Amino acid sequence: MTDLSPPPFSTRHIGPSPSEQQRMLEAVGFESVADLVAVAVPEAIRSKDRLKLPAAASEAEAIAELRALADRNQVLTSMIGLGYHDTVTPAVIRRNLLENPGWYTAYTPYQPEISQGRLEALLNFQTVVSDLTALPVAGASLLDESTAAAEAMTLSRRTGKSKSDVFVIDADTLPQTKAVLATRAEPLGITLVDSDLAGELPDCFGVLVQYPGASGRLRDFRDVAERAHAAGALVVAAADLLALTLVAAPGELGADIAIGSTQRFGVSFGFGGPHAAYMSVREGLQRQMPGRLVGVSVDADGDPAYRLALQTREQHIRREKATSNICTAQVLLAVIAGMYAVYHGPDGLRRIATRVHRHAAVLADGLRQGGVEVVHQEFFDTVLTRVPGRAAEIVAAAAERGVNLWQADADHVSIACDEKTGAAEVTKVWAAFGVERDGVALDDPRVPDAVPASLARESGYLTHPVFHDHHSETAMLRYLRKLQDRDIALDRSMIPLGSCTMKLNATTEMEPITWPEFAAIHPYAPEAQAAGYVDLIQTLEGWLAEITGYDAVSIQPNAGSQGEFAGLLAIRAYHRERGEGERDVCLIPSSAHGTNAASAVMAGMRVVVVACDAGGNVELADLDAKIDKHRDRLAAIMITYPSTHGVYEETVTEICAKVHRAGGQVYVDGANLNALVGLAKPGEFGADVSHLNLHKTFCIPHGGGGPGVGPVAVRAHLTPYLPGHPLRDGTPVGPVSAAPYGSAGILPISWAYIRMMGGDGLTAATEQAILSANYLARRLAPHYPVLYTGRGGLVAHECIVDLRPITKETGVTVDDVAKRLIDYGFHAPTMSFPVAGTFMIEPTESEDLGELDRFVDAMIAIREEIAKVGSGDYGKTDNPLRNAPHTAEALTADAWPHPYSRTEAAYPVPSLRDDKYWVPVRRIDQAYGDRNLVCSCPPLEAYED
Amino acid sequence: MTDLSPPPFSTRHIGPSPSEQQRMLEAVGFESVADLVAVAVPEAIRSKDRLKLPAAASEAEAIAELRALADRNQVLTSMIGLGYHDTVTPAVIRRNLLENPGWYTAYTPYQPEISQGRLEALLNFQTVVSDLTALPVAGASLLDESTAAAEAMTLSRRTGKSKSDVFVIDADTLPQTKAVLATRAEPLGITLVDSDLAGELPDCFGVLVQYPGASGRLRDFRDVAERAHAAGALVVAAADLLALTLVAAPGELGADIAIGSTQRFGVSFGFGGPHAAYMSVREGLQRQMPGRLVGVSVDADGDPAYRLALQTREQHIRREKATSNICTAQVLLAVIAGMYAVYHGPDGLRRIATRVHRHAAVLADGLRQGGVEVVHQEFFDTVLTRVPGRAAEIVAAAAERGVNLWQADADHVSIACDEKTGAAEVTKVWAAFGVERDGVALDDPRVPDAVPASLARESGYLTHPVFHDHHSETAMLRYLRKLQDRDIALDRSMIPLGSCTMKLNATTEMEPITWPEFAAIHPYAPEAQAAGYVDLIQTLEGWLAEITGYDAVSIQPNAGSQGEFAGLLAIRAYHRERGEGERDVCLIPSSAHGTNAASAVMAGMRVVVVACDAGGNVELADLDAKIDKHRDRLAAIMITYPSTHGVYEETVTEICAKVHRAGGQVYVDGANLNALVGLAKPGEFGADVSHLNLHKTFCIPHGGGGPGVGPVAVRAHLTPYLPGHPLRDGTPVGPVSAAPYGSAGILPISWAYIRMMGGDGLTAATEQAILSANYLARRLAPHYPVLYTGRGGLVAHECIVDLRPITKETGVTVDDVAKRLIDYGFHAPTMSFPVAGTFMIEPTESEDLGELDRFVDAMIAIREEIAKVGSGDYGKTDNPLRNAPHTAEALTADAWPHPYSRTEAAYPVPSLRDDKYWVPVRRIDQAYGDRNLVCSCPPLEAYED
Repeated sequence: MTDLSPPPFSTRHIGPSPSEQQRMLEAVGFESVADLVAVAVPEAIRSKDRLKLPAAASEAEAIAELRALADRNQVLTSMIGLGYHDTVTPAVIRRNLLENPGWYTAYTPYQPEISQGRLEALLNFQTVVSDLTALPVAGASLLDESTAAAEAMTLSRRTGKSKSDVFVIDADTLPQTKAVLATRAEPLGITLVDSDLAGELPDCFGVLVQYPGASGRLRDFRDVAERAHAAGALVVAAADLLALTLVAAPGELGADIAIGSTQRFGVSFGFGGPHAAYMSVREGLQRQMPGRLVGVSVDADGDPAYRLALQTREQHIRREKATSNICTAQVLLAVIAGMYAVYHGPDGLRRIATRVHRHAAVLADGLRQGGVEVVHQEFFDTVLTRVPGRAAEIVAAAAERGVNLWQADADHVSIACDEKTGAAEVTKVWAAFGVERDGVALDDPRVPDAVPASLARESGYLTHPVFHDHHSETAMLRYLRKLQDRDIALDRSMIPLGSCTMKLNATTEMEPITWPEFAAIHPYAPEAQAAGYVDLIQTLEGWLAEITGYDAVSIQPNAGSQGEFAGLLAIRAYHRERGEGERDVCLIPSSAHGTNAASAVMAGMRVVVVACDAGGNVELADLDAKIDKHRDRLAAIMITYPSTHGVYEETVTEICAKVHRAGGQVYVDGANLNALVGLAKPGEFGADVSHLNLHKTFCIPHGGGGPGVGPVAVRAHLTPYLPGHPLRDGTPVGPVSAAPYGSAGILPISWAYIRMMGGDGLTAATEQAILSANYLARRLAPHYPVLYTGRGGLVAHECIVDLRPITKETGVTVDDVAKRLIDYGFHAPTMSFPVAGTFMIEPTESEDLGELDRFVDAMIAIREEIAKVGSGDYGKTDNPLRNAPHTAEALTADAWPHPYSRTEAAYPVPSLRDDKYWVPVRRIDQAYGDRNLVCSCPPLEAYED
Repeated sequence: MTDLSPPPFSTRHIGPSPSEQQRMLEAVGFESVADLVAVAVPEAIRSKDRLKLPAAASEAEAIAELRALADRNQVLTSMIGLGYHDTVTPAVIRRNLLENPGWYTAYTPYQPEISQGRLEALLNFQTVVSDLTALPVAGASLLDESTAAAEAMTLSRRTGKSKSDVFVIDADTLPQTKAVLATRAEPLGITLVDSDLAGELPDCFGVLVQYPGASGRLRDFRDVAERAHAAGALVVAAADLLALTLVAAPGELGADIAIGSTQRFGVSFGFGGPHAAYMSVREGLQRQMPGRLVGVSVDADGDPAYRLALQTREQHIRREKATSNICTAQVLLAVIAGMYAVYHGPDGLRRIATRVHRHAAVLADGLRQGGVEVVHQEFFDTVLTRVPGRAAEIVAAAAERGVNLWQADADHVSIACDEKTGAAEVTKVWAAFGVERDGVALDDPRVPDAVPASLARESGYLTHPVFHDHHSETAMLRYLRKLQDRDIALDRSMIPLGSCTMKLNATTEMEPITWPEFAAIHPYAPEAQAAGYVDLIQTLEGWLAEITGYDAVSIQPNAGSQGEFAGLLAIRAYHRERGEGERDVCLIPSSAHGTNAASAVMAGMRVVVVACDAGGNVELADLDAKIDKHRDRLAAIMITYPSTHGVYEETVTEICAKVHRAGGQVYVDGANLNALVGLAKPGEFGADVSHLNLHKTFCIPHGGGGPGVGPVAVRAHLTPYLPGHPLRDGTPVGPVSAAPYGSAGILPISWAYIRMMGGDGLTAATEQAILSANYLARRLAPHYPVLYTGRGGLVAHECIVDLRPITKETGVTVDDVAKRLIDYGFHAPTMSFPVAGTFMIEPTESEDLGELDRFVDAMIAIREEIAKVGSGDYGKTDNPLRNAPHTAEALTADAWPHPYSRTEAAYPVPSLRDDKYWVPVRRIDQAYGDRNLVCSCPPLEAYED
């Protein structure tokens, strides 16, 4: 009897059917996948055993198990605060954005023409931040408030006049921010000084003020800013965006930089993340900002168009000289926060803030009336009480009533009000304090506001029409649809980005993340209330350790860049603990991702570049030379495997051995882990530490540019140096993220993926990814030279095709081809990385043969167009490639001034007549936007012809 | 202090903001909404009191209350069967179709050019049905299996040669089908004869065979068919689609008609519905089929295009001569069922069916081995056991183990296996019977299949590529996106359809319907397991009674047409019970919806038409005459209020009184209830019975053409005659639907709407709907004459604009304008109803002023285009109206043969440059498709140029 069990999930995840796979094998010239893999993957690194993972669960079984885990989490009302506040995600936003693959499967908007929807959404976000903080330039986005504070610290140091190494921190700063700052300051030689900011400031390059403070205290910091500026230091305000709708803005009080979280703008707790942090700066600092910045430019017709601005600041270009190592941001969450402001508008936000504030004021008044000491009289939403010796008992009494409060210490309890706080919650809190009161009258005139008049917000905000035109659900729904339709995401077509692994983000993986039992847990809720989460996290860490061959994994880093940083910190701490603290040289091959170098600098290391040979492999002679030269100071080598050239280097074990012999540690960047899972384990073939990208290999969607999760995995000797808990002292290495488990809220995705694939399914996926890449390489090779190959002329899971000869011959550039692919309905492959003038193409295992062929057909058709440029049939400057992408407006214009036809422009292959993506703008002028920097919503007149 | 409570949901539901409302009032010439309503709505019908409903809940509160109701439902494993079987909705389909407003907010595909996506999906559905039943023509869709059986009965009577009034029913027919057939047969004078079909058949016009039977028995009915055909009767097979993947098809066994449910193709129970039923017929019967039929035609370029075929059969054209009263179908559910087949393909379906069958076979074998008598040896999925005196005890024992079985009677228990059945379930069932066995080996060769060799399916099915190309999740996701993008639904733009009330379907209303606690309850689960449902239903019925002024409501009818039928049955039963059974005349104004007449015929009444005057009102003189003429036989009048002309008739109370005085009952069609809620109550101003459309007035989305819910509401004297329970005898009127609560699964939508609006919110919505209609009328009037108005020149909630003078003057037809609106991104208003050559426009309260103005601007721009035709600036036959809609292909074609410009065609107003809908086909040739009927997926060659 044939197998009657339901087809495993892996047959849904893996695109090609068995018969398609057979046709692909024939094209590549192998009998079986095993034969292909035996040639492609060096024997030396192959795992001996199958993965030891639970047998694959069906989608229904995985959901049932996740449901059981979720049920072990307890959703209490959270009044813990500390930078995380409960909020209502408008249902229309949840369903049509957070639960919509049109939004969540999009990639980072590096190809701006097909990203205008999310770029507009991010521009809204930047406008919200810039308006509310009253600082002119805001980015989109940073990873969490604490790392944003660290970025502000280094920005202050880079740009300030002071030569001091001291950074002063408000004593009332969030504890997790203090901890992350400590982690980040030490390798850079920055000294942190805790201060109440009342008296004279020490000599310093910057001052951080928490506004309002962690204790709830609302303080006018104008005088602090004046003193800091007088001393040549910059002022950073860590500010609560919702509070800013009622209180004076940081920019108005003298801050140079504002940072903070936007979580409470409609983004759930998720046990710590993901949420978008923000940063805004005063005029003059924008070219030093870390991370991504959306700006307005113009397209080929001079119409306004959005794109990422000032990219030359970033790690992928500036490497160790970058403003930061940040790569993946928190786009999806920033988009939600921006849409929350769009939906509520300024009046709605002010109303929410006022309600929150009045609840806090009435709560404090009731406590005072009941004989409880309230510490600060000026606050926004958080009430700090002094209850000598009774704190634990009161917190327990509140928990019994279903409310979590925060025990600051044995004598203090704080209570944070939020958007969900109502009379019932206030009454329960009173009761927990032993105060019996009835009736919560927000408009009680005897209860004064707790915002001092001097701090009342006078300036306006969110005056742009976008914050006024979408307040009905219908209008909001259509705005979301309109923006979504402008973009290419995985729900439309293949996104063949090398090094980015744009695979399926299955619905069953995604569904649990919006369940309240996962979404509504505060990161500092008592762990007993998060038993399901802790179990899921430990299980996932264990599975990842098994897959990578390491001994321990921490999922705390909330982006790949943070994982790299954490890994390098572990190496650094290991050397220091062994008395070899002088080891600070980090070898990095010239082909490495830019983040590697940027992270090394953050970890206090010096970057030494190792050359690559013509085949894209590390040049062993140069490696030997560099090791020799730096032997005593050698800390580590960072390599990517398979290499960024898409090849399994035969020499990897030799490289590892050489570095180890010289006393260095080996860091293997996990960017290309999708070529290894089930076949080889970095922890077994010589590496000491890796970071993974759950948003590449393990199905967390890219979200349009984040969230990501970048776990760090280490061998046993490095285990003690994994990141510490942000609220617990005494670990050798501190935390790298604000939340103990980073972006815990999206870990169910990777858990579900591994659970449903099982070891065999994961291995089959890797095999298919290799086959698909080789199939593409084989089919493209007659038309575009494939640059690097390994044994048997094979590539790994991606391939690089060379356009430089074409450019030389015809003038058609890699950019022209990328933009022309848009006309064919495709997102371009990775451009000019690791080699300028090339495409790096990664199909992943999820694309079926039909889609792979559609892509190849497009590339071949484009090659024919290029040939016509070469032959003179098309003009050098007026041809379908140079003019790409073609908008519907251009194609239907009454005048058609081009020597090629409209049909050639619009429908170069017949399949486009069945399904055509219409790009909303023509090619965007990148330089114009950098010269004329506009980073908030442009006035509507800008769109008028 | 300003109000700090969160803005009520009504501010999200109602489109215009207060300031927009003020501007609209100014345009209409009133100071306040109250002033407007005071003039528009006749004082005589106005309610004296505000609605007595609970105060509006917030979205969060409503969700919490629904959560509490859901938690009172118990989800047990259902092995009840009886036509409802558990199934796995693929997550990718649930999220991207069932939970996607791009699919669920679409309207019925009467405008085929903007409906190509769902029409293709429905063609897939028809192909599934036609292939699996081996009958060439299938429709899409019917309401449930039992009403489909009733439709097949009347189709047999209409088309057969026999003059008999007898319809023979297989004794093994589903009990609910028997009950519904009885309800439907009696008014038509059809006699039903129950038969085991073994011996000679009585003289009859048709025979219904259940295949497999309700008892699970699988019977080869070839001989029954032969005998029936010999006697001139038609054969109807009620067949299980999943079984048909393994057993011979009805068409192969001699059936003329096949009907059944497609629920188990991925559609949840929903406590009874909604699900799509199917019907397919042999060649020759297609022009007599009830309901909607999708067919292939060609567009203006000769390219294949889909549209509804043979509409002249339907009630909206044929009225009392229609093949059926069916209007709203079950499109969304049919689309899901079709996509389920697309995702699994024929091999996947066969594998599922085989697994189901093997579980049943192994289950039966185990029972036999354990000494339990198994009644039938040939079955597909359902095992009937004889357990004298023990049935109740065994069912209870199973329930204790979490499994619901079916107690057929005191001595029989049946067990139905389904897609979710596994070893655990089989073991539990054995245990409930006291059989202790371990190990469920599906491939045990000692357990033979229970499908006899003579009935094994030999023929192929689902050979079309669409059933083979979308088996990975990525491919499925993109197919759903591609089809969605072809259509206009409410998530793109206003759908201003008069009489259809296309208002917001809010996310918060929609979210609960996919919760397992609502979705996974079998309609015949013990009511104790559905306590939350029963509470919700009773509450909703009570609220609807309050809103309409009636004394009782039944939500059983699963479409408006069924509500009409139920209402007329109540009137019929009332007259008969009072000894006035001769009353059978139903007066219907000439302006009525076609369903009114069709329903009256089904209820055994004679239709007498009453004339309308030039103002669209019932002509009182003619009414008097008709009453006089039919006084002794007068059963009822059916009117719509406000009238189908969009006017509050002043004379409605008088009309009611006249009919009452003549002994008749008054039926008020609730189609236009959106103009009354909170302002007037039919049950108070003179009506005896109404049906409502929850999918119009109470926010159930149209789903692309269904599901709908059509509750019937009656005054106290008619309460005894509401529809009965399908499994309980002895009620004066039988059931009109297969499930006791009809489409219970979507009732949470209307519950949530009423709960979140409260009485004041509902009233405000009505007021805004009236204001919006009058605003449109006022703005359009200078350009298009508004046909009917009431007091003060006002309309109700919709308005009719007259295009006949334009057509006369310029030749531009209402069709031209409708198709040209597509180029402007709009779905056309209702065309030529109730008056040929007009548009009926209903904006609803959910459209904001910006969208209303965008629509008016489009209509004005079109009027200017019409003027150019009139003036000769545009040609009579080659102009932007006649050539509309314009596809991107046409607009970018190298040749542009038209005298107007491409820009005029594509971007007649500037806002289209911001957001343009691209129609996938040009104008469709309706007649061609009816002449060349193709109702299943066309071969791919059809698409080649």
